[in-house]
Amino acid sequence: MSAPLDLPVVLLSHRGPVSFDDSGDITRGAGGLVTALTGLTGYLDEAVWVCVAGEHDRTGPVRLALDPEPRVLGADDDVDGRVLPLRLLDIPAEVHQPFYGVIANPLLWFVQHRLYGIGTEPSLGREERRAWEDGYVAANRLAADAVLDEVARHGGKAAVLLHDYHFYLVGGLVREAFPDVLISHFVHIPWPGPDTWKVLPPDVRTSILTGLLGCDVVAFHTRSDARAFLLCVQELLGFPIDLDEFSVQYGERTVRARAYPISIDIPSLEAVAHSPAADEHVAQLDEEVGDGKLVLRVDRTDPSKNIVRGFSAFGLLLDEHPELAGQVVFLALLQPSRQDVQEYAEYTDAIHTAAGAVNARHGTDTWTPIDLRLVSDMPLAAAAYRRCDVLVVNAVADGMNLVAKEAVVVNERDMVLALSEATGAHDELGRFAVTLHPFDVAQQADALHAALTMSAEERADRRGMAAAVVRHNDVGRWLAVQLRELAGLADDD
Amino acid sequence: MSAPLDLPVVLLSHRGPVSFDDSGDITRGAGGLVTALTGLTGYLDEAVWVCVAGEHDRTGPVRLALDPEPRVLGADDDVDGRVLPLRLLDIPAEVHQPFYGVIANPLLWFVQHRLYGIGTEPSLGREERRAWEDGYVAANRLAADAVLDEVARHGGKAAVLLHDYHFYLVGGLVREAFPDVLISHFVHIPWPGPDTWKVLPPDVRTSILTGLLGCDVVAFHTRSDARAFLLCVQELLGFPIDLDEFSVQYGERTVRARAYPISIDIPSLEAVAHSPAADEHVAQLDEEVGDGKLVLRVDRTDPSKNIVRGFSAFGLLLDEHPELAGQVVFLALLQPSRQDVQEYAEYTDAIHTAAGAVNARHGTDTWTPIDLRLVSDMPLAAAAYRRCDVLVVNAVADGMNLVAKEAVVVNERDMVLALSEATGAHDELGRFAVTLHPFDVAQQADALHAALTMSAEERADRRGMAAAVVRHNDVGRWLAVQLRELAGLADDD
Repeated sequence: MSAPLDLPVVLLSHRGPVSFDDSGDITRGAGGLVTALTGLTGYLDEAVWVCVAGEHDRTGPVRLALDPEPRVLGADDDVDGRVLPLRLLDIPAEVHQPFYGVIANPLLWFVQHRLYGIGTEPSLGREERRAWEDGYVAANRLAADAVLDEVARHGGKAAVLLHDYHFYLVGGLVREAFPDVLISHFVHIPWPGPDTWKVLPPDVRTSILTGLLGCDVVAFHTRSDARAFLLCVQELLGFPIDLDEFSVQYGERTVRARAYPISIDIPSLEAVAHSPAADEHVAQLDEEVGDGKLVLRVDRTDPSKNIVRGFSAFGLLLDEHPELAGQVVFLALLQPSRQDVQEYAEYTDAIHTAAGAVNARHGTDTWTPIDLRLVSDMPLAAAAYRRCDVLVVNAVADGMNLVAKEAVVVNERDMVLALSEATGAHDELGRFAVTLHPFDVAQQADALHAALTMSAEERADRRGMAAAVVRHNDVGRWLAVQLRELAGLADDD
Repeated sequence: MSAPLDLPVVLLSHRGPVSFDDSGDITRGAGGLVTALTGLTGYLDEAVWVCVAGEHDRTGPVRLALDPEPRVLGADDDVDGRVLPLRLLDIPAEVHQPFYGVIANPLLWFVQHRLYGIGTEPSLGREERRAWEDGYVAANRLAADAVLDEVARHGGKAAVLLHDYHFYLVGGLVREAFPDVLISHFVHIPWPGPDTWKVLPPDVRTSILTGLLGCDVVAFHTRSDARAFLLCVQELLGFPIDLDEFSVQYGERTVRARAYPISIDIPSLEAVAHSPAADEHVAQLDEEVGDGKLVLRVDRTDPSKNIVRGFSAFGLLLDEHPELAGQVVFLALLQPSRQDVQEYAEYTDAIHTAAGAVNARHGTDTWTPIDLRLVSDMPLAAAAYRRCDVLVVNAVADGMNLVAKEAVVVNERDMVLALSEATGAHDELGRFAVTLHPFDVAQQADALHAALTMSAEERADRRGMAAAVVRHNDVGRWLAVQLRELAGLADDD
């Protein structure tokens, strides 16, 4: 694939492609977004990636060699392979903590996943107001300054690709300085309707929306999210929108809302799934599960992932189907997440309680129904993808969910995908899945039973078709389609 | 005003115009909806009101004389004044309990007011499924049967006026039997967007929407709610909608979404507000408040009313303005509500805790900052409306909120209305109010300060204009506009 966009690119995301530990060693960043963006840089002739420096990171401009393992290059070093210019943003702790720890997480995350029961939460006071002004707004100004600096270095001719809920204000700030630059903003988490956004004070939600309207394209994983964004612009700002063209006229400019479903990097996934470490995990899982069936989930311990209701549904399945006793293990690989936030710590407790209740009710000396492991181990997850019979994704809200896409590609037992209707992935994979209704524990128990008793032929058909869809719509295609459409906008000017 | 609709009317609501106690005595029903519908019957030549019989009510057809006090008429009794035919529905307890106590309240109420933090609630199991089938669906069938019987008695020529969230399925059931009858359904509580409705299982939300699409008109208090309904039809059912005409084509029929903001019956309110009981309460309030200012709220103890954040905001006001010490009393008249539902009992506890914290921090031997009274006493409420300096309505979601309309009409001290942007009333009265952002405690504290320090002239201007708007858009006008538009539809046929 040739470079589809004939412009230097300035990329902005909160996390970068590598992180530095306290001895200066470098590791590749984890997570689907970072993997996708690292892939993106391979398609671009000229790009710089602006991201926030971690505690032990260097700051400022860094030249990074990516292959075979990432390393920082000196000024005169010359290498074969990909070289990625990075710009590591120094956001002072007194700005970063309120920016990230009060506003981005949990406030924006909770609002966008609709996790607040609004009768009692959130309660915004003077501290949250300061966190908005001195944290989120200040961090967005620092990020915008760095992006502006990079755009200026290219004589104002660049495409600016902004990412996610950390930097909603940057598009507007860049537009003020460079009225003609091409800007897109990709929102990777769900975008709820206007009523949910009203949880934020009027000036805050207005700033977020007008910041995004500084862009030429505001992109999401699903058409439903893109539509909800336009409806917010209509209802909260009062601008007329065009739901045929999926656009809004903002002053002189047309702003487009678009859906580009993100995907996975298949070669890297396959490399991990067939690493020696993964092979060893497969052998161990074979030993644990024996002739039985393996139900799997792989998630962060986030309330949006719906882990507690999933365990309740599995418990109900065992209550109602005693013939399954000893025949099935639910392996839950859960990466502990944000345990410094009260809601997350409480949710982790609730996960343990729910699993414990099922194991106490149904477990025997030789069978533990739910095998709960708080780990973050990609070779283990990939091994479990290969070995599982059912993958459970029952999230109450999820921008995409890449676990579903990963598992169907590397699975070796014609697993059944049990997939929540509230994930972005359901748009592409729902027709090959057993659909889960995330709030209905009884429906989930029935769906798990259907998945565990599906015929081998149907399982093979569905898994094969799902894998084919993911292999076709891989992360390369996700990138190429976006860049091609952005290039079309650049040509129109 | 002459009868605007030349058809016999069959009215359906959960509560009726009167209730019977265990000694057979009759009292008028309370609440804005019942008052409004009782008024409606005065404008109609021929009407019957179908409602659910209470525990001590008679069942079946009853002829009710309304004036001067309601009484049941015998077959041969003849009276001057209004006579209202009632039909009291006998819904067996084993149907009514799941219908009302599981589905209508709390499930639909919580969904429509967006009170669930969806990470953990609701969790729907076999019991909720049975409550839907054997409760809500069954009760709606019984109500539809009674309505159909009344329509048949008029040879199939009637206008059917259905009310509120208890009976979403009735419109569709009536339409099946009488394809040409005129049907409207009025939804009196907020209508959230499609993402919030996805908390209900697909078949449940589809039944609710298609039930409403059995009507000719689906009515709400605000245009925003009517629009959200159409967006649900589009996103959850996949039907094309027309946001210019505010309608949807459903098979051969056009279904219209409309906004008719409900209002109050001004003569009845004024009668209560100037009753001897109210006069006595005014004198007592004068004694309690003295030269100080009275901040008032009148609500049910419902999490949607936002009582806890309101007390927190008042506490913050006192923290930041020590000059107010001893100068202001916050009188909260709270009607205990649904204490058999866990969330309501917990919320009532939280109300006591929040008020107690403010009183402990600021109270003195001679001053209790928050005067919290768990009562339902209309003369006391009306007296407080007359005497208050600020009325606080900070609901997180409220279809209309009639308290705001009542207070501005009878108040005698040019009170300031402090009104949440999340109430239907804000559409009409927001421009005369100090707007409250219901999630922002700090903003509410600032707004209360602005209200308490507003100049007498500005207060008089705003209160006067608000009262004039309410007097013009009174409940009679609410009824007349709806009936006129329905009559227009009838003429088109």
